[in-house]
Amino acid sequence: MSLPSAHQVIRFVAPVTGAVGLAQFAQATEPVREPAEGQMLVRNVLLSLDPSQRRQMMPGVEYAEPLRLGDVMIGRTMARVVDSRLPGFSPGDWVRGKFGWQEYAVSNGMHVERIALDGFAPSRYLGALGNPGITAWVGLEVIAQARAGETVVISAACGAVGGAAAAIARARGCHPVGIAGGARKCRHAVEQLGYEACVDYRAPDFVAALRAATPMGVDVDFENVGGEVFDAVLGRLNDHARIALCGLVSQYNLAEPDGLRNVAALLNHNVRLQGFRLAQYARHRAEALGELKALLRSGAYRPDETIVDGLDQAPQAFMDLFRGVNMGKMLVRIGPEA
Amino acid sequence: MSLPSAHQVIRFVAPVTGAVGLAQFAQATEPVREPAEGQMLVRNVLLSLDPSQRRQMMPGVEYAEPLRLGDVMIGRTMARVVDSRLPGFSPGDWVRGKFGWQEYAVSNGMHVERIALDGFAPSRYLGALGNPGITAWVGLEVIAQARAGETVVISAACGAVGGAAAAIARARGCHPVGIAGGARKCRHAVEQLGYEACVDYRAPDFVAALRAATPMGVDVDFENVGGEVFDAVLGRLNDHARIALCGLVSQYNLAEPDGLRNVAALLNHNVRLQGFRLAQYARHRAEALGELKALLRSGAYRPDETIVDGLDQAPQAFMDLFRGVNMGKMLVRIGPEA
Repeated sequence: MSLPSAHQVIRFVAPVTGAVGLAQFAQATEPVREPAEGQMLVRNVLLSLDPSQRRQMMPGVEYAEPLRLGDVMIGRTMARVVDSRLPGFSPGDWVRGKFGWQEYAVSNGMHVERIALDGFAPSRYLGALGNPGITAWVGLEVIAQARAGETVVISAACGAVGGAAAAIARARGCHPVGIAGGARKCRHAVEQLGYEACVDYRAPDFVAALRAATPMGVDVDFENVGGEVFDAVLGRLNDHARIALCGLVSQYNLAEPDGLRNVAALLNHNVRLQGFRLAQYARHRAEALGELKALLRSGAYRPDETIVDGLDQAPQAFMDLFRGVNMGKMLVRIGPEA
Repeated sequence: MSLPSAHQVIRFVAPVTGAVGLAQFAQATEPVREPAEGQMLVRNVLLSLDPSQRRQMMPGVEYAEPLRLGDVMIGRTMARVVDSRLPGFSPGDWVRGKFGWQEYAVSNGMHVERIALDGFAPSRYLGALGNPGITAWVGLEVIAQARAGETVVISAACGAVGGAAAAIARARGCHPVGIAGGARKCRHAVEQLGYEACVDYRAPDFVAALRAATPMGVDVDFENVGGEVFDAVLGRLNDHARIALCGLVSQYNLAEPDGLRNVAALLNHNVRLQGFRLAQYARHRAEALGELKALLRSGAYRPDETIVDGLDQAPQAFMDLFRGVNMGKMLVRIGPEA
């Protein structure tokens, strides 16, 4: 078969300390490498954008492998194998891997998963059936051990992780209460995502509204946001509350983090907080995936996706993540599925 | 026998929001009540002062029972039974209970323990063999699960809890590193209390000194202080570090708490933080006490006590707790032992 000779690539080209801007990225036409023996060539179809990628752009980051200037911008994608000189991968296969912000990638198969779609859209494998969904499952089930009847607060309620957490919490008989930015998202959280209530953190009466929405206090905080939102939830914690600390999206773009004021609540209420990253909990993937597929099939879980079209839109879409523009999983369509 | 007719009592008389002062307390001569059937009269010998009592002086506190204006100031004491109309308690018995800042108290025996001294000084049962020692044991063994070879940072290193924690950590083969205020305390921590190193949080190079004292990072933080001290330790945490959040003594006297800035470390390093109060871990008392007695007898644990003489000195001694004046357990001698 004939392979493409050139493709579009976006590289990380300027260090960032405050907010990410377009200046961090440079797009260029580059040659497509031919796969050597033991390699394959894949064509990216859908690119996952995730706030945590922001952390790898910091100098001296201690989280995962830091990006170096000039690197292809990192990102997980759903891709199709175009050419393979690697056993176990054949042209046409769907694969998921960290193939980056580019149209094609050459891979030796390390950390690449072949994906059987099992009746679901490819995009699901970057959202509801990808790391966001599995992260939500691990956070509620393994980290926070949420139980029936408990009040579970979920910040970034309409994000990919938040939406999955709401569905799982609901399935467990918990009372999921969301926190999101703006009335539109809060309405959506209740009508579409199964939250019993959702509180707008941008509203002037946010703290009072959170209190009203959690009349029995808070047993579990699935924390995705940090800063003032986190502080407000700390003020509602019950004795023996658990915090699954999954993200701090309000903080990644700040040169100096906000100070967390309500630390005493952790002491006074015998609270357990666990910071976690999914990589440490890979053994739970299969069980999580089984429940997530069942929730999707039953219609109890109807996750949103925001799909932006074209690789060249990726920088702007990434910046939009931190303004809360997206509903559900933020994806970039790089190429056609077929 | 003839009972005293009057005694000295210190009551909590003025609300406090910022730092505690002498104005919060009023001392008076009051009549001694006679014990009714089912009660006993005890004579206080030693009074324990503890920073956590400060929290019960806050309006709207959520920690334990709040003090009301006019109450006898709360405090645990070692006392001797003077007269008893209560089965199981006889004149001359040593008892430990929350008998308050006063010379005598009438009690129905609820939450009162009869103490067999077992060869130790009565003061030990408010320090090394009392809640401070047992808190240290629970924090390291149950909460943080400190293991041989791990670096354990202990703030308020020369306090009653800190000193016990150092001895226990040392006995486990951990590397205890203290944080204390001033060169004198830091020297004492290393020479007397078994710390491998101790860092002065008042020194301008505190953060650099902490880094130098923890070359392998920090696996366990036994946190007693909060604020900037806590923030500095967060910056040294290793992956899967555990934080036993036992106290926030730097914060109790502030009208507004300091903001904790390094929250991202909890996320980036998969940290588990557990706020705890001893009351929830009573089932570990006997085991803890056994090890603490053995450590004392072997000489591996040589805890300090600061004993202030006279009930009228209690308010000033309590204020001094927050200035870090004391070495080890702060006690007030209210009356003679015999």
